[in-house]
Amino acid sequence: MQILDGKLIREKNTPLLIEKIKSLSFVPCLAIIQVGNRPDSTSYIKAKKSFAKKIGINEIHIQLDESVSQDEVINIIKKYNEDNSVQGIIVQLPLPIGLSSEIIINSIDSRKDVDGLTPLNIKRLVDGNENAIISATARGINQLLKFYNIDLFAKKVTVVGRSTLVGKPIALMCLNENATVTVCHSKTNNLEEETKKADVLIVAIGKPNFIGKNHVKSGQIVIDVGISRQTDNTLTGDVNFEEVKDIVEMITPVPGGVGQMTVLALFENLVDLCYSIRN
Amino acid sequence: MQILDGKLIREKNTPLLIEKIKSLSFVPCLAIIQVGNRPDSTSYIKAKKSFAKKIGINEIHIQLDESVSQDEVINIIKKYNEDNSVQGIIVQLPLPIGLSSEIIINSIDSRKDVDGLTPLNIKRLVDGNENAIISATARGINQLLKFYNIDLFAKKVTVVGRSTLVGKPIALMCLNENATVTVCHSKTNNLEEETKKADVLIVAIGKPNFIGKNHVKSGQIVIDVGISRQTDNTLTGDVNFEEVKDIVEMITPVPGGVGQMTVLALFENLVDLCYSIRN
Repeated sequence: MQILDGKLIREKNTPLLIEKIKSLSFVPCLAIIQVGNRPDSTSYIKAKKSFAKKIGINEIHIQLDESVSQDEVINIIKKYNEDNSVQGIIVQLPLPIGLSSEIIINSIDSRKDVDGLTPLNIKRLVDGNENAIISATARGINQLLKFYNIDLFAKKVTVVGRSTLVGKPIALMCLNENATVTVCHSKTNNLEEETKKADVLIVAIGKPNFIGKNHVKSGQIVIDVGISRQTDNTLTGDVNFEEVKDIVEMITPVPGGVGQMTVLALFENLVDLCYSIRN
Repeated sequence: MQILDGKLIREKNTPLLIEKIKSLSFVPCLAIIQVGNRPDSTSYIKAKKSFAKKIGINEIHIQLDESVSQDEVINIIKKYNEDNSVQGIIVQLPLPIGLSSEIIINSIDSRKDVDGLTPLNIKRLVDGNENAIISATARGINQLLKFYNIDLFAKKVTVVGRSTLVGKPIALMCLNENATVTVCHSKTNNLEEETKKADVLIVAIGKPNFIGKNHVKSGQIVIDVGISRQTDNTLTGDVNFEEVKDIVEMITPVPGGVGQMTVLALFENLVDLCYSIRN
């Protein structure tokens, strides 16, 4: 069994990204808007801020009280849409109940949409348009596979999970890479039968250790997108690593797999946006 | 084998649609923009105009020369975006080479987007948002299945074809209906094996008689989206009807199947848009 090492790829690719940033005529700036103080959101934002600092990118972290109105959030987004010193805007999801993430996300200028969630970028992803800014998770997985020379062309990919944020962009990315793609979810019958048929199994359901030895077969490549913090504070994926590691051919660990790639890909999205603006 | 009779459903549903139109305080109007004079486009537009007339909807057919500039097309769209007497705008695809269908389609106000192709409607389809206006083909197939009490919940659906106009919206619609969905295409290995696994097989590749007896199995429901005009002027689907009819359980004929539903669904989209504006 081979470990697909996201940490290694990130370490290898970070200097290249830093070079690209240095070649810009300005220092890029990312605005991160957080509403409320969910600990998981705070922890994700901390990881983004720390990586931004490492690669020489400015960030503005706007932390808003849970009681903020939708219009106030939209006005802040509009301010950054118009601010030429900010090239990327993230609204950390999920938002508190009462705020429409559709309306709020759609108010982000698609030219600053580093998360690839605005309608124009989603449509471009559906179209297979190479100008799409795609979800960092999907981009990160694509890079990880390419690093290990795993070509999705004509491969059978099964994605477990169909969220707008993660599962669907991954499925569309794989389809754009010419894989035959199956999307499974909580309503799927005979999940074990479906997952076993895949050449590449991508799991993004947010249920720790859900995929076990009965879901996999020899020769498979397993990509584990889940990251759940356990009561003992360790991080666990959606795949039961210990159960499947001696069956499958390649697997991403948690931590150290897809999560590492996602943060890298997010800033690669930002730098792509910077290059498409000017320089 | 049972025929899934699109013509019958259209005949049954047309009076209901006419009632809904009569209950509006205005006569809806659809603007159809055609660039060039492809015979297939002219024929589709003719079918739309004829159905519009039948159900009491006004239409404006704008036929532009192939030499028209992109800006001219966009200016015409903008005029209809602002014209309150027009509730729906269609740009007949494909457009001549040299015109960007992305830029042209995206200039349609999503509130008048009866084809469900603007970024906002595509994103809503991806989100599973019930306010999405979805592609008439996908809506028509959904209605046809519902008419025959075929529930996609937890069914295994295989969609052959992945175009932005047809295959992908159908796949996303089926996913929103809680099916486990596989998308196959020209790069798929072992297509026959894939198609045979489906409970519901939906074919949208535009290759006459491509799916034959080796692609299907007993008990399947087959939805044939293809419509190709043969040299003898007859219409043929993507499925070889004669070859599969004695194997599968249910099948849509061509003509008289999905195509009938698509025209109906297009005008249902228009009427939905009319109701969301006013009345």
